[in-house]
Amino acid sequence: MAEAGGAGRWLADFHPGRRFESGPRGLTVEAVRAFAEAFDPQPFHLDAAAAEASFFGGLAASGWHTAALTMRLLTEAMPVAGGLIGAGGELVWPRPTRPGDALRLVATIESVRPSRSDPARGWIVVRSETLNQRDEPVQVMTARMTVPRRGPRQG
Amino acid sequence: MAEAGGAGRWLADFHPGRRFESGPRGLTVEAVRAFAEAFDPQPFHLDAAAAEASFFGGLAASGWHTAALTMRLLTEAMPVAGGLIGAGGELVWPRPTRPGDALRLVATIESVRPSRSDPARGWIVVRSETLNQRDEPVQVMTARMTVPRRGPRQG
Repeated sequence: MAEAGGAGRWLADFHPGRRFESGPRGLTVEAVRAFAEAFDPQPFHLDAAAAEASFFGGLAASGWHTAALTMRLLTEAMPVAGGLIGAGGELVWPRPTRPGDALRLVATIESVRPSRSDPARGWIVVRSETLNQRDEPVQVMTARMTVPRRGPRQG
Repeated sequence: MAEAGGAGRWLADFHPGRRFESGPRGLTVEAVRAFAEAFDPQPFHLDAAAAEASFFGGLAASGWHTAALTMRLLTEAMPVAGGLIGAGGELVWPRPTRPGDALRLVATIESVRPSRSDPARGWIVVRSETLNQRDEPVQVMTARMTVPRRGPRQG
């Protein structure tokens, strides 16, 4: 597990095609229910019997739980100097995350460019696939993140 | 607060331009830190002094915390029959959410169409703005959601 602090990468460390991978992280039914109670209190995230009869055909994690776990995996796989800071992105959930799944991340750099307005920073576009233990994608995201450029003081 | 169960809306209940609004929901510094510890353990989400020196210039909630709270507000403002089920979307965070902020949601239906593959369902596109107590957007999202069509048994 990596710290996302000063030990992270700078803009020059990224190039299109570079990949970052995390280890797997498991998801318990208790965690699925606790997240849902706080943020997405719908029957198919909370109650196994109600979930059976729902669109999902069984208990499923909130998509936002999958998204939040993906962020955790990204902080572990790809530390950036000054921290990982996203401006937004696009995401799809091709299939639900289920209690008991173990998720891992494969992130690929799509593009790298200096900022037009701030010479100390740049932008990267990262495509991240969050995979379950059968290597099926549960989330695919393309995110735009700001990354600092190495200055004279950082050598 | 509304239940997102069978009492919710069907595809025919949505039309472009229809708006849904939630009440405000406050965010404590403890909640910001707890979410960050679980999902986004970076100094600017956890530690006030480190946050002062960071890109954010002060403690900020994880963008994924803002996204998760937005889902909570959406379940309250816009219940759908069978539950709110998103397939994905695009989101941006124009400014950070801060501890002590109170967030509310304004959601507007952008489009409504039947599914091509499933006569029992359709798709809506929802644009949601998550606003802080100064009515400044902290998240703008366009999401695609699946909604059931009212069948003969539902009259």
